Amino acid sequence: MPDARTLIAIYPGSFDPLTNGHLDIIHRAANLADHLTIAILNNSAKQPLFSVGERLSMIRESTSKIANVEVDSFSGLLVDYAARRSANGIIRGIRAISDYEIELQMALINRRLRPETETLFLMAGEEFSFISSRMIKEIITLGGDVSAFVPPVVLKRLREKLPASR
Amino acid sequence: MPDARTLIAIYPGSFDPLTNGHLDIIHRAANLADHLTIAILNNSAKQPLFSVGERLSMIRESTSKIANVEVDSFSGLLVDYAARRSANGIIRGIRAISDYEIELQMALINRRLRPETETLFLMAGEEFSFISSRMIKEIITLGGDVSAFVPPVVLKRLREKLPASR
Amino acid sequence: MPDARTLIAIYPGSFDPLTNGHLDIIHRAANLADHLTIAILNNSAKQPLFSVGERLSMIRESTSKIANVEVDSFSGLLVDYAARRSANGIIRGIRAISDYEIELQMALINRRLRPETETLFLMAGEEFSFISSRMIKEIITLGGDVSAFVPPVVLKRLREKLPASR
Amino acid sequence: MPDARTLIAIYPGSFDPLTNGHLDIIHRAANLADHLTIAILNNSAKQPLFSVGERLSMIRESTSKIANVEVDSFSGLLVDYAARRSANGIIRGIRAISDYEIELQMALINRRLRPETETLFLMAGEEFSFISSRMIKEIITLGGDVSAFVPPVVLKRLREKLPASR
Amino acid sequence: MPDARTLIAIYPGSFDPLTNGHLDIIHRAANLADHLTIAILNNSAKQPLFSVGERLSMIRESTSKIANVEVDSFSGLLVDYAARRSANGIIRGIRAISDYEIELQMALINRRLRPETETLFLMAGEEFSFISSRMIKEIITLGGDVSAFVPPVVLKRLREKLPASR
Amino acid sequence: MPDARTLIAIYPGSFDPLTNGHLDIIHRAANLADHLTIAILNNSAKQPLFSVGERLSMIRESTSKIANVEVDSFSGLLVDYAARRSANGIIRGIRAISDYEIELQMALINRRLRPETETLFLMAGEEFSFISSRMIKEIITLGGDVSAFVPPVVLKRLREKLPASR
Repeated sequence: MPDARTLIAIYPGSFDPLTNGHLDIIHRAANLADHLTIAILNNSAKQPLFSVGERLSMIRESTSKIANVEVDSFSGLLVDYAARRSANGIIRGIRAISDYEIELQMALINRRLRPETETLFLMAGEEFSFISSRMIKEIITLGGDVSAFVPPVVLKRLREKLPASR
Repeated sequence: MPDARTLIAIYPGSFDPLTNGHLDIIHRAANLADHLTIAILNNSAKQPLFSVGERLSMIRESTSKIANVEVDSFSGLLVDYAARRSANGIIRGIRAISDYEIELQMALINRRLRPETETLFLMAGEEFSFISSRMIKEIITLGGDVSAFVPPVVLKRLREKLPASR
Repeated sequence: MPDARTLIAIYPGSFDPLTNGHLDIIHRAANLADHLTIAILNNSAKQPLFSVGERLSMIRESTSKIANVEVDSFSGLLVDYAARRSANGIIRGIRAISDYEIELQMALINRRLRPETETLFLMAGEEFSFISSRMIKEIITLGGDVSAFVPPVVLKRLREKLPASR
Repeated sequence: MPDARTLIAIYPGSFDPLTNGHLDIIHRAANLADHLTIAILNNSAKQPLFSVGERLSMIRESTSKIANVEVDSFSGLLVDYAARRSANGIIRGIRAISDYEIELQMALINRRLRPETETLFLMAGEEFSFISSRMIKEIITLGGDVSAFVPPVVLKRLREKLPASR
Repeated sequence: MPDARTLIAIYPGSFDPLTNGHLDIIHRAANLADHLTIAILNNSAKQPLFSVGERLSMIRESTSKIANVEVDSFSGLLVDYAARRSANGIIRGIRAISDYEIELQMALINRRLRPETETLFLMAGEEFSFISSRMIKEIITLGGDVSAFVPPVVLKRLREKLPASR
Repeated sequence: MPDARTLIAIYPGSFDPLTNGHLDIIHRAANLADHLTIAILNNSAKQPLFSVGERLSMIRESTSKIANVEVDSFSGLLVDYAARRSANGIIRGIRAISDYEIELQMALINRRLRPETETLFLMAGEEFSFISSRMIKEIITLGGDVSAFVPPVVLKRLREKLPASR
């Protein structure tokens, strides 16, 4: 088990797909934590655009230069996964315009379920405050250009997956 | 300069006085950071109830058992103080019911002024969601009992300072 | 028809399932109202976890010791049900972290539809601020422990209904 | 002490001055409570426009036709006043556009200080959602017409007090 | 292309159905803009209550007396439609109680996608602050009376479409 | 009186001092309105950093290249000033992180006081979402660098006025 003073952090999410906003949080969290695991939620109830395998490979390619970052996937309760990883921190980005209340509610419930793992909120950069995976999928479906909002590998895969997109 | 992977954190505030809500954040942040400085803002524009010296001694007494915590005061810009301390993290508690937007605004502006220091928000425990230093001073002024909301040393000093209080 | 000064109140909801947060509101509202009807919304458009009959029996068992409480179900407009019950109050719990705006919108529209019935908001206890029926179903589906969040009879039925849960 | 099932309510505030929004809440609360005390906060720290005596007389004149309403003033903690009046309810209006969070914070702290007194929120009518005593004083100071926002007696006194107003 | 100082505005929405709140925004926007196009979003992913054709005819009938208003429908990205129409303004109503954050998020993303088209928010009248197309459909489905919330032609069509409604 | 279809707009504020966020709103509003008056509120109750004359000259210098913009000052009610100027539009910037509710409240009350003048909200650019005149004064007082947040003429005058600033 790590020393309590070591920040072993998890950055959970659907990442369907990874956005530049996610990537910004990853870089910043990796500067604070000793070890950061990007943990893709494998939610069988939702129909994702990209499979867990595709998401793993896109995130790995986009974060390959950050030494203390690892990419993984999990199912079940986040706090149970955090316990298996001996993580004492969960990283979440919050955007000024966003599901702020849902985030706080999840942080409170996760703290109640497992007080040993703390949720740490990083403020999303203001230039990313309107970017969400859902928005990106919607824009690309309607023929819009999302090249400014996602990493190159994601853009390439989006164009393969949705040929109608620009 | 510390290795980027070391979390050198500052927990800034007025702490006039320290509450159990502050103390909860201090304990939790000390479990994540390598070193935590509780930094009392010396704001000459405001008339505090307790002098900076009194606040320093009350916080020191209340945190004496936490190894990696230090208490200090500062004036001027927080990010300049963070630079002098080589801190890469600023800890802030956010309460569901609170000045949430002010907190995000300050985090954005601090990030713009000094990107090397990241603001990390911890969710205040729900049992502390209504406690603020201002509320405590107001209740005690009106003759209310605040013993459940502040550490023992603060309660003792409040009673000395405001004899009308219970 | 009751005297206008008699508080005949309805506490409407899905209660799928009843939580400790609901139970707290029920106890507090029963201390204020002359008569309180817990009114289960029979919404044919949603697939509930528990049938209306199961919810009725769980709520009855959990509130059997409160003299002025009755459990019922209804379909159609809430204000029409309130009129049939000659109710002059609708009780709603609001959580600091929640669908606050939806609650206010419904209160305004219900007041427009039937001004004789007033919506009264009680503040959810801070220890219940993160509990919702939806959250509880999600946690138990993912194998989490919800014994601290629901009454014993609900926990028992949840375990029968979802054997995978702890 | 009243039976717990009797709603003995207090509607506290500064009422400097009483607005049509306040009056709407008073009428609605008087339809729900057995007895309603309008309790003027005597806050020595603030410079009011109208003295407590003036406010008492204006509210009495505006509510003289409501049988179960009484007007009073208090200083000190609201919950201590509620205890002296054996009140089990505190009435507060909430406006969609307003100091919502402050209201919830005060409700939580009052509940912690005295659980026997429940805070009940009524939704302000949408036609009053922008009216506050502060706004009214500001408009009248700037020469605006507030006759649609306050009861006749308040308008008359405002014109005597601030001759510049229309 | 119009002179930049000419306000060529689009008021986009689903209008399923048109409400009195929409109509209020249309009248007010038509007083500000040189030309206003009411643009019905043709969203194939959603099951509307009224077809695009039905919505076009109801809006045309309800706005026939406003000289500078035109009704149209579009699919695809709103900013692409705005470009085709050489519009420099998008009109949106915001309600105090509403999806405010979603509105801001869409305005930011539309501005990023096409800076030449500005989003202009008008504040919904407080008497319309609780009206939404979704609410109206829900109320009428439950047998409620919506005659105060929609224009006459919409009420007539709603009664034909949903005979159960009053 | 102007034709109703002409947008004669006022952009009111304290502008103490003008920020890059204000300037962004001015440029965008000038692209929509036929005529835009930047109206400095002369509020005798507040102690400004810059006199009205200084603010007038700084805004004039910063907007001299925009043809349809005029700078003025006013005291009294904004809607009375709007009536004197025959303005049918009031421009306000809203920031995602901000006094949103105050803005809506003022818009509602201004509409009630004078329905002929409409408030139009423009979304502040996300890069300005944390900039306010108050923040800028605070940062410069504490020795921070605000050169990225204000126009050159304002920076020059701030440095003359507050020599301690960088």
